[in-house]
Amino acid sequence: MEAIARSVATPRATVAPKASRAAKRAAVRQVTKSALRSGFFGSNKAVFASSKAQAKAIRQEVSCAVATDADLALDCINAIRFLAIDGVEKANSGHPGLPMGCAPMSFILFNEMMKFNPKNPQWFNRDRFVLSAGHGSMLQYAMLHLSGFESVSNADLQQFRQWESKTPGHPENFITNGVEVTTGPLGQGIANAVGLAVAEKHLGARYNKPDCEVVDHYTYCIMGDGCNMEGISTEAASLAGHWGLGKLIVFYDDNSISIDGHTDISFTEDVSARFDALGWHTIHVEDGNTDLDAIRKAVEDAKAVTDKPTMIKVTTLIGYGSPNKANSHAVHGAALGPDEVKATRENLKWEHEPFVVPEAVMSQMDRSEDGAKFEAEWEATLATYTEKYPEEAAEFKQLISGELPEGWEDALPKFTPEDKGDATRNHSQTMLNALAPVLPGLIGGSADLAPSNMTLMKMFGDFQKDTPAERNVRFGVREHAMGAIANALGLHNSGLIPYCATFFIFSDYMRSAMRMAALSEVGNIFVMTHDSIGLGEDGPTHQPVEHLASFRAMPKMLMMRPGDGNETAGCYAVGVGNRKRPVTLALSRQAMPNMATTSIEGTKKGAYTVVDCGEKPEVILIGTGSELQFAVEAGEKLSAEGTKVNVVSMPCWELFDETDADYQESVFPKDVRKRVSIEAGSTQGWMKYTTDSGIAIGVDTWGASAPGPLLYEKYGITPDAVYKAAKSLL
Amino acid sequence: MEAIARSVATPRATVAPKASRAAKRAAVRQVTKSALRSGFFGSNKAVFASSKAQAKAIRQEVSCAVATDADLALDCINAIRFLAIDGVEKANSGHPGLPMGCAPMSFILFNEMMKFNPKNPQWFNRDRFVLSAGHGSMLQYAMLHLSGFESVSNADLQQFRQWESKTPGHPENFITNGVEVTTGPLGQGIANAVGLAVAEKHLGARYNKPDCEVVDHYTYCIMGDGCNMEGISTEAASLAGHWGLGKLIVFYDDNSISIDGHTDISFTEDVSARFDALGWHTIHVEDGNTDLDAIRKAVEDAKAVTDKPTMIKVTTLIGYGSPNKANSHAVHGAALGPDEVKATRENLKWEHEPFVVPEAVMSQMDRSEDGAKFEAEWEATLATYTEKYPEEAAEFKQLISGELPEGWEDALPKFTPEDKGDATRNHSQTMLNALAPVLPGLIGGSADLAPSNMTLMKMFGDFQKDTPAERNVRFGVREHAMGAIANALGLHNSGLIPYCATFFIFSDYMRSAMRMAALSEVGNIFVMTHDSIGLGEDGPTHQPVEHLASFRAMPKMLMMRPGDGNETAGCYAVGVGNRKRPVTLALSRQAMPNMATTSIEGTKKGAYTVVDCGEKPEVILIGTGSELQFAVEAGEKLSAEGTKVNVVSMPCWELFDETDADYQESVFPKDVRKRVSIEAGSTQGWMKYTTDSGIAIGVDTWGASAPGPLLYEKYGITPDAVYKAAKSLL
Repeated sequence: MEAIARSVATPRATVAPKASRAAKRAAVRQVTKSALRSGFFGSNKAVFASSKAQAKAIRQEVSCAVATDADLALDCINAIRFLAIDGVEKANSGHPGLPMGCAPMSFILFNEMMKFNPKNPQWFNRDRFVLSAGHGSMLQYAMLHLSGFESVSNADLQQFRQWESKTPGHPENFITNGVEVTTGPLGQGIANAVGLAVAEKHLGARYNKPDCEVVDHYTYCIMGDGCNMEGISTEAASLAGHWGLGKLIVFYDDNSISIDGHTDISFTEDVSARFDALGWHTIHVEDGNTDLDAIRKAVEDAKAVTDKPTMIKVTTLIGYGSPNKANSHAVHGAALGPDEVKATRENLKWEHEPFVVPEAVMSQMDRSEDGAKFEAEWEATLATYTEKYPEEAAEFKQLISGELPEGWEDALPKFTPEDKGDATRNHSQTMLNALAPVLPGLIGGSADLAPSNMTLMKMFGDFQKDTPAERNVRFGVREHAMGAIANALGLHNSGLIPYCATFFIFSDYMRSAMRMAALSEVGNIFVMTHDSIGLGEDGPTHQPVEHLASFRAMPKMLMMRPGDGNETAGCYAVGVGNRKRPVTLALSRQAMPNMATTSIEGTKKGAYTVVDCGEKPEVILIGTGSELQFAVEAGEKLSAEGTKVNVVSMPCWELFDETDADYQESVFPKDVRKRVSIEAGSTQGWMKYTTDSGIAIGVDTWGASAPGPLLYEKYGITPDAVYKAAKSLL
Repeated sequence: MEAIARSVATPRATVAPKASRAAKRAAVRQVTKSALRSGFFGSNKAVFASSKAQAKAIRQEVSCAVATDADLALDCINAIRFLAIDGVEKANSGHPGLPMGCAPMSFILFNEMMKFNPKNPQWFNRDRFVLSAGHGSMLQYAMLHLSGFESVSNADLQQFRQWESKTPGHPENFITNGVEVTTGPLGQGIANAVGLAVAEKHLGARYNKPDCEVVDHYTYCIMGDGCNMEGISTEAASLAGHWGLGKLIVFYDDNSISIDGHTDISFTEDVSARFDALGWHTIHVEDGNTDLDAIRKAVEDAKAVTDKPTMIKVTTLIGYGSPNKANSHAVHGAALGPDEVKATRENLKWEHEPFVVPEAVMSQMDRSEDGAKFEAEWEATLATYTEKYPEEAAEFKQLISGELPEGWEDALPKFTPEDKGDATRNHSQTMLNALAPVLPGLIGGSADLAPSNMTLMKMFGDFQKDTPAERNVRFGVREHAMGAIANALGLHNSGLIPYCATFFIFSDYMRSAMRMAALSEVGNIFVMTHDSIGLGEDGPTHQPVEHLASFRAMPKMLMMRPGDGNETAGCYAVGVGNRKRPVTLALSRQAMPNMATTSIEGTKKGAYTVVDCGEKPEVILIGTGSELQFAVEAGEKLSAEGTKVNVVSMPCWELFDETDADYQESVFPKDVRKRVSIEAGSTQGWMKYTTDSGIAIGVDTWGASAPGPLLYEKYGITPDAVYKAAKSLL
């Protein structure tokens, strides 16, 4: 291993000078092209027209048919393959098959097509890349490393899937610079890619000038069979087609293998025809294993179609090069094993030790020089733009800085008891419309429930194919894609503040995307209305019960349930203020009064005393959302009877849990164990706040179809229930 | 209202004698056909070729162009429309638009096409009908009522959406006899329909004989734009095409309106082309408002194609007949209002009071006579079958009786500490393979994770288009459709015992289907493996944290986490034994030892003492699943030190909560408040069992990518952590 370590230690020190490398890269491209034209790759074509061909047959053909410069391209491709093979092998865990099959398309993409600066991964105008088939993470790590990203060193590649490494099992944007979005849960990556392309189209429409384009990049994605089977990918693709996202280019790694075996057993639809039906431009590269020219041409053709997204179906052999495991599920999700690694090395004539990359490959693959040039050109454009369009430039720069405009929170309205009581879903709309003028990044919409979720920003039109500068997004009835697309609006890292909405019950359709928001640190605002049995007649299929509890159990998610106008304002203060943490807002269909003592500041603390008896209370009543008023009402009755009672509003458990012990003691003194909570949802976990001497009033079974107020009576969600519970404790 | 009540009270008493009614029905069908041929409806065709036509234009054309007998058909259709209009109006809540537009296709379906017996809604061989667009529930209630189902009386129609009525906001199978599946969450209904068709195809293949077909029915479904936008519908449709479900016939109510307005704003894909790509037979009925002949012919054509499911796109006008609200979202989800109801009555020349149905319509629509005939014919076939194929008949009858075969539970293996420790996912496979031979109804599979979820029944092949008698179902990477399809296998009410599997983390993709299982009383067995950070290298995108808590909060769901082989057997005893209640099994990737004191009987109680110190314990340790062993190990150490300690295994909170107070006290004596729980998941809710004097050890944040055992160390999920926690309490 010493020899390996040495050769790994200094790869970049010995590469050729930058200028000559760039020239050489161009030359390789040219020579590869002519090699393809003259049949060097072409001769393979016949042999590998179908990915179903025997893996064994690869060996001689590839090894003898490639000329010197095309040989370098092949070396690059094999370097990618072996970094993946060896990374998985060392970890004895991972998925080598996809990287081995997708290395050629990735080579073309990262080496020739994509515009990025490895030395500044966050450079705004970079092309975005999403590995929707996230299990093939070693492919992405290999590409980042070879392309010159410092975030993934050779040593990092050797730590694949190990504790605290930069190369976790699936690509994680919050771990590895250069990874745009976290993937793994299949289908969400392609939906993220749609969202990134939406961000580009939207910002381009808002800020570009005919003579000065400051927003101009492609979004690339590699998806697999699994992604295509997941419903979310069709949801997202339908929207991408509808919106005409011409700068979205998706490779479908058509390798016909998934974990259960050949896709014939469950996946025989015509994928390209489906994408055609969804309004996409589709292309088929029949031999994705060796026909680099066809891959290159496909991307060029994709770029030529500007009013439709493009899906390039690239037929590949999973585990290409492995003589005994290629084209089988054995190569999908497990290390090849020492024998097969050796056989694959022989098969592909790869004589380098694990993790050793030839200098010529390092030099060819490094995009640092190009990247610096891309960024410098863009900076020059931005300078011109700043000069010509100072106002737009100021907003644009503010936006992409990711900093919120100063004083934005002042736009949030305040309410007094004199203000008419209202449903918090309506307050939510008030907040969105108050914030929209001061937050140029605010963008979002509903899954076909805008008039119910109250999510329209009235001063804007709809984001559509021909009106992409508008900021109301119409997601249709596609909750899961909505969540993932909105996540990507945030992950575009351009200052966009996404929100998205549906009935709270249908969070069940988009739960994975909400979790991904929390995991991948997206400040997405999930506007969830109709938050309890209080919605009434629609019945138990539409009435959330366990949903508050289920999101409170989700790490990092801020589950918030405001009790009136001020608290709704507080929720938006929290939601907008946290750009790396999502909030889920549970909002009512029914009206509730505005209170004198609720506040934004209190809301930010998660729980606070809204009725204070001024001395040590005998009992503490706790309410959230539409039931806060019931706690207050019961408190008034108890107080009138001479009981010392505090009422606590608790819009967010998580925020309260994060306050210091003194504050927590001030709200819930340890020696006041007589406590009653009321909330029209599962009581699970409430004991943490009521103590096990207290009583949690809630709904732990299905709702029913009937008018909301009657249901509240029938389910015992009333001020009287709070009063009686408190009396039973006193 | 008195007049109405009277005319409603005796409608069936005055109808014509049965024979003549059947004859008349046939006559109407004939006359309607000739009316259509001779242009009576045809003359409308030109006017209504597009559903985009002005609603106002309907009035004169329809009212003057229909002859006497076609007039009866029209009366039937308008009766459906007005039952829906008036039901929604009386409730001042609901969705009149869909029933008004879908009344013609429903009339053809229920009156002419479908085979069922309204007097025995559970008759086995009935055609199944699913209203996937469940918000149009008044359509289904009207059809059930008019067709002669006693489960929906005229009085019930007048109680639409009221407390304890038989006509809740969305169709609920557990409330209304004749409703096959509960719908409302969009897209799941079409997936349910696929599942019902799978059940039919599977059972037909197993039991039918060339000379004797005891299983032979169609599955019909009405889906809307919303269903089509949801990803689950594509997942399910892709499988239906793959499986070649020739007896599945789906109407797509193409009315171009959803809640946000015209579908142009978010839904411009070519739906028929998408279904073509998915391997379906597609038909377009251009005028679904008046062209009954085309609807009829479409169903006939659908039946003629036996190797593909059929999607009939029926272009309709939402809210057909409403002069001011048709073709707008105003008619989608709200009562028309008195003025518009009046205007619609005038427009459609419907002179009857609300809920009054003309005798001729009642007579025409009633299918009781046909139903009795259908059932009698089938009973005769079954009698022949029983005579000719007594063995198959015995199994078939046992199966469709819904009773489990006697002694089935004896097939479950028992384990002792001498048996090699194993992962519970492997034990789960052992159980499935032990049960398969004794449970002819057991059928299921995985969402492309069979070799990881360990779900294959080794004695069977795959359920496929050409091998439909087999019992391993390959769902592909389509968790949500899998859940809904498996639910429908249960809801087919033919004794099938469905199970379905994925990684526990991907329950997030199918959560709504799992909730629907619990709500609609399906004994589905959700096999969820890789149930904690213990899965290791795949990292936080794949590691469940909040999932146990989230399902424990879900009403009726039995969330189970077995701690060894015996408890896995216990989980299957519970899961199979509960035919109306789903279980979710959280199963480990990693091995755990078999214990001497674990048992099926203990598991059935949800929690039980597995290490008993024989006197009052000082401390109680509680463990679940793969952490049970840690509690035991810590207990041994404490015990060796002289501490009196009990160890409780708690595989299911819900079952324990349902035991009696004495039993609960025996496991958790009230005065033993020193308790420590350990579980590699969210600690939310554990205080209920640890008391707030105890300690819950768990994982309340994201997992990470690293080998599982290392993660357990890093996250403090160890015997030592239990030991130390207990010591801190003593």
